[in-house]
Amino acid sequence: MKLDVREPVLKANDDIAADLRRMFRQRHMAVVNLISSPGAGKTTLLERTLDRLRGDLKVAVLVGDVQTENDAHRLERFGFAVQQIITGGTCHLEARMIAEHLPQVLSPGLDLLLVENVGNLVCPTDFDLGEDAKVVLLSTPEGEDKPLKYPAIFHRAAAAVLTKIDLLPYVDCNVATVRRYLRAVHPGMPLFEVSAVSGQGLDAWLAWLQAEVQAKRVLSD
Amino acid sequence: MKLDVREPVLKANDDIAADLRRMFRQRHMAVVNLISSPGAGKTTLLERTLDRLRGDLKVAVLVGDVQTENDAHRLERFGFAVQQIITGGTCHLEARMIAEHLPQVLSPGLDLLLVENVGNLVCPTDFDLGEDAKVVLLSTPEGEDKPLKYPAIFHRAAAAVLTKIDLLPYVDCNVATVRRYLRAVHPGMPLFEVSAVSGQGLDAWLAWLQAEVQAKRVLSD
Repeated sequence: MKLDVREPVLKANDDIAADLRRMFRQRHMAVVNLISSPGAGKTTLLERTLDRLRGDLKVAVLVGDVQTENDAHRLERFGFAVQQIITGGTCHLEARMIAEHLPQVLSPGLDLLLVENVGNLVCPTDFDLGEDAKVVLLSTPEGEDKPLKYPAIFHRAAAAVLTKIDLLPYVDCNVATVRRYLRAVHPGMPLFEVSAVSGQGLDAWLAWLQAEVQAKRVLSD
Repeated sequence: MKLDVREPVLKANDDIAADLRRMFRQRHMAVVNLISSPGAGKTTLLERTLDRLRGDLKVAVLVGDVQTENDAHRLERFGFAVQQIITGGTCHLEARMIAEHLPQVLSPGLDLLLVENVGNLVCPTDFDLGEDAKVVLLSTPEGEDKPLKYPAIFHRAAAAVLTKIDLLPYVDCNVATVRRYLRAVHPGMPLFEVSAVSGQGLDAWLAWLQAEVQAKRVLSD
């Protein structure tokens, strides 16, 4: 029964995502889809990222939540176009939601669209949004075994960010173990170890984002 | 389309949950369903809870995860019956999974069945498992606004547990604000502020659990 229900839903999503991907490619826009548990620090990482990219890249942001416009309000102050997507009860973003809200942030010359998914390590995994890369965030207080428990997203994501490394002295999280579990699920996956509080590790993360933008720029239509 | 898909799935689940609830009632077993984000501390709270209930109550545990038996292994050492439910890709426990795995932990005279759901603040909300109470956990590093962003689970749960209060000096989380947001979504909801590290707040949580067991004991068939 489960497959009967999911297959047509995912097929419809994939069709819209393919249209989005074609359009993103024509515009040479890089698109990154951030996925994590609730409270792992997606919005905070975006705040630091937008702050550092000001004057350098032209960025737009779509931010998904089941309820509230809190995150959009937090992100608006950096001067980029930001649009909240309130999903109602839905536990993930779908391509049709991106297609519906995109016109409100689209403008000529956009380099990068950052999408913050609903806080959820499971359901967003299967829904292609036409992005170039999924990035999975894992915060140090969540513990080391999340890559083993939620392998699908860690396998599908192009990069991982370990957030809140400033909390390492106070939580039961060994970075070497995180790295080992991550590599077991996804060999060779880049891992950025970041503190939004101290700024540690942000340079490497931003360099990776810039490389995504650069790769999309040089792509021929 | 969404409603067409979900309604029959939820209806089938509710029917199995109603059967389970009838059976739990006949056995005077209290059943509590723990729900939270990944890494909020469900398994750690269960470890402390089982440790304290030894010699006092007869408890069984069903623990759900997308992958791995890690959590069951952590919980087995307290001498209670523990069974892992591996959901494969499914992002929540369903009543049929409880019905399927229950025989492996069921024995005469059980007082309490503790169910640890898959780490997810959205999808487990709608799936009745025949429980007496859902309990939602929120950890201090996740931030204060989760009750506003995920109102459904905070509205449906009978009690909330704020975990990792030992991290309060290091994270951006004001307990008064958590309490205010929680009460906005669910007035009168009990909130237990707990540290599994120091043991702070565990007594109140255990007293609440004992009251659930007592309420079920005095219920006539």
